[in-house]
Amino acid sequence: MKRHIALLLLCLTASAAWAQDTLLVDKRVFELEQFTTYTGKTIKQVKVGWEAYGQLNADKSNAILITHYFTGSSHAAGKYRASDAAPGYWDALIGPGKAIDTNKYYVISSDTLANVSAYNPDVITTGPASINPDTGKPYGLSFPVVTIRDFVNVQKALLDSLGIQKLHAVVGPSMGSFQAIDWASAYPDKVERMISVIGSAGTDAWTSISLHHWAMPIMLDANWQQGNYYGKESPNAGLVASLMMITQQALEPDFINRTIADHSPLENAPLHDAMAEFKAVRWLRERAQSRAAQMDANHVIYLARASQAFVAGFSASMDEGLARIQAKTLFIPSAHDMLLLPENIRLAHEKLLALGKRSQIALLNGGMGHLDGVARITQQADLIRDFLNTP
Amino acid sequence: MKRHIALLLLCLTASAAWAQDTLLVDKRVFELEQFTTYTGKTIKQVKVGWEAYGQLNADKSNAILITHYFTGSSHAAGKYRASDAAPGYWDALIGPGKAIDTNKYYVISSDTLANVSAYNPDVITTGPASINPDTGKPYGLSFPVVTIRDFVNVQKALLDSLGIQKLHAVVGPSMGSFQAIDWASAYPDKVERMISVIGSAGTDAWTSISLHHWAMPIMLDANWQQGNYYGKESPNAGLVASLMMITQQALEPDFINRTIADHSPLENAPLHDAMAEFKAVRWLRERAQSRAAQMDANHVIYLARASQAFVAGFSASMDEGLARIQAKTLFIPSAHDMLLLPENIRLAHEKLLALGKRSQIALLNGGMGHLDGVARITQQADLIRDFLNTP
Repeated sequence: MKRHIALLLLCLTASAAWAQDTLLVDKRVFELEQFTTYTGKTIKQVKVGWEAYGQLNADKSNAILITHYFTGSSHAAGKYRASDAAPGYWDALIGPGKAIDTNKYYVISSDTLANVSAYNPDVITTGPASINPDTGKPYGLSFPVVTIRDFVNVQKALLDSLGIQKLHAVVGPSMGSFQAIDWASAYPDKVERMISVIGSAGTDAWTSISLHHWAMPIMLDANWQQGNYYGKESPNAGLVASLMMITQQALEPDFINRTIADHSPLENAPLHDAMAEFKAVRWLRERAQSRAAQMDANHVIYLARASQAFVAGFSASMDEGLARIQAKTLFIPSAHDMLLLPENIRLAHEKLLALGKRSQIALLNGGMGHLDGVARITQQADLIRDFLNTP
Repeated sequence: MKRHIALLLLCLTASAAWAQDTLLVDKRVFELEQFTTYTGKTIKQVKVGWEAYGQLNADKSNAILITHYFTGSSHAAGKYRASDAAPGYWDALIGPGKAIDTNKYYVISSDTLANVSAYNPDVITTGPASINPDTGKPYGLSFPVVTIRDFVNVQKALLDSLGIQKLHAVVGPSMGSFQAIDWASAYPDKVERMISVIGSAGTDAWTSISLHHWAMPIMLDANWQQGNYYGKESPNAGLVASLMMITQQALEPDFINRTIADHSPLENAPLHDAMAEFKAVRWLRERAQSRAAQMDANHVIYLARASQAFVAGFSASMDEGLARIQAKTLFIPSAHDMLLLPENIRLAHEKLLALGKRSQIALLNGGMGHLDGVARITQQADLIRDFLNTP
């Protein structure tokens, strides 16, 4: 009994401490009457969600833009409601007194176009699942290909609307790093600092193939119907399979092996039935199923394409794109990343140094592979703090 | 003109030298009236193909068994016909005077059960695509789960039929390595030497998930019909997608990036059409399509399951299975293998050493990742020759 009370007290204390520490944030909507994509297509009535932490200073010089990863959203920190199960993905990094200190900086983040979580009520995005105002029906595959540059340009329009002409820094993990790097290359005079977490400066052939595999299960699902499944049964089996692959690739083998510590290759059901799944596969499936419920399958295809069609600055070569960067840069790859290989990320850093730019690199080694960049980012919190606080 | 003649002569000379060097081999059939699987199921009228190079000596002590990889067959060396486009996969290793010297050894190899190339006229196998003698119809998913141990036991029955009671060595790459390791553990008094090329001693949770992904695109294909597609349209799109994944994972990123040297993330068609594929993806698709024509989709699912359900000796643990091995062992992982990680292979070697066994390890580093074990095996030809020729 005594022990129960002690535990209860501990929980209450922890919860109170945590509540004090956590920002409550509002999700807002940014709208553009029309937007012209990188390839020259027009999208009408673009809406994306955004949120901000901290206060914009008088000369609007303290803004830090956070750009989100493939399955992420603008929700980088804080909670929308005190009752939310978890805060934003980089809450350990962003907040009052934290490495990205909201007592100093105005931290802002927005949902990308074609954000995968189209059915998450806290995500606001425009993509293939949106209603085309010209037809009154969902776009499906008639939605134009959108690129990392388009995500950057929507963010730029949002910042322009707030009168922010210069970013103290742009920081993002994975697909968010693509946006951060592109920001620094596309708008070199607007970006003072760039932090690329677990992200390369251009998509090579090998990664392009991996991204194709992410889209493939959806396109094989008979319910997909060339993207015209709205109002009908959705390609859920394909979407779940896609998420299962994404999740595996975002983790390092040891993490999965430690998590499924009781894995046995001689598990009984799969030995007797070719259709029975191993416990490890069921674990991955259950994670994927719960996440798939809020996602749109076409949006996964579109974000895979956006990630394929990326090179720093959308230049003829990665070198040319890097050459345009004026910001000081910090690259933070994960040592055991099997998705965006740390040696490719080091390459971008070394090219910047060779070009006479100011660049730093530091590794994450948190045991989660690519996901270290989201879940274990505080390993480099001190470095990030110093990088942001020095000229 | 002079140059053309010189080239012609060079070609003729090379061709003649090669012809002398290349064995012509016959494919034979081994039949078992019935076979009981590891899980106790009966399969009637089992047929598998086999072939041999060299001569069995009088006391039948010079046999070396070669066990094949996932998409391989018994065709390890030589040609069936002088006109064949290419010889067997390890022809550079196996032949008169080569590392596995057919002047000394009787080298034998057989097709596994459920061999993926069910429609290759040079492959003879029994699996889901075979006619069930009890029903007169293809088995489909009613074919029992078959395991690495079953492949070993069919090979053992073949060797028994030839009066071979002891193997000078068993040697195999990848899934063939699973069989080689299982041979050494299941029948320790029959195996004097074991060479495991690019293969671990047990399938961990992470690899089990990768193998699930290989089966997944087939099961998503609407033509698959729970495996009942015989006589109807086959799940070719799923099979091609599966082979595309297998091929990517079997290669190292640098190989793909060097091969698609003119890859551009800003390739025109994919920027304008979400369904247009990048050149890198088309390259992989074309390779997969040509290979899929001779393959059966259910067989891919069954070999993926066989590869999942593997641990050395089918023991309660990998350690226990390794402890049973009496053979001297040689492990040859590939340094940049992203499919069966070299560190896991080193683990098996180190466990054998810790158990007081004789084990060696040597790396391949041929620039092809996992496929080094097939295409670049001659990097370790001298070591293999020495290992086989010493007691």
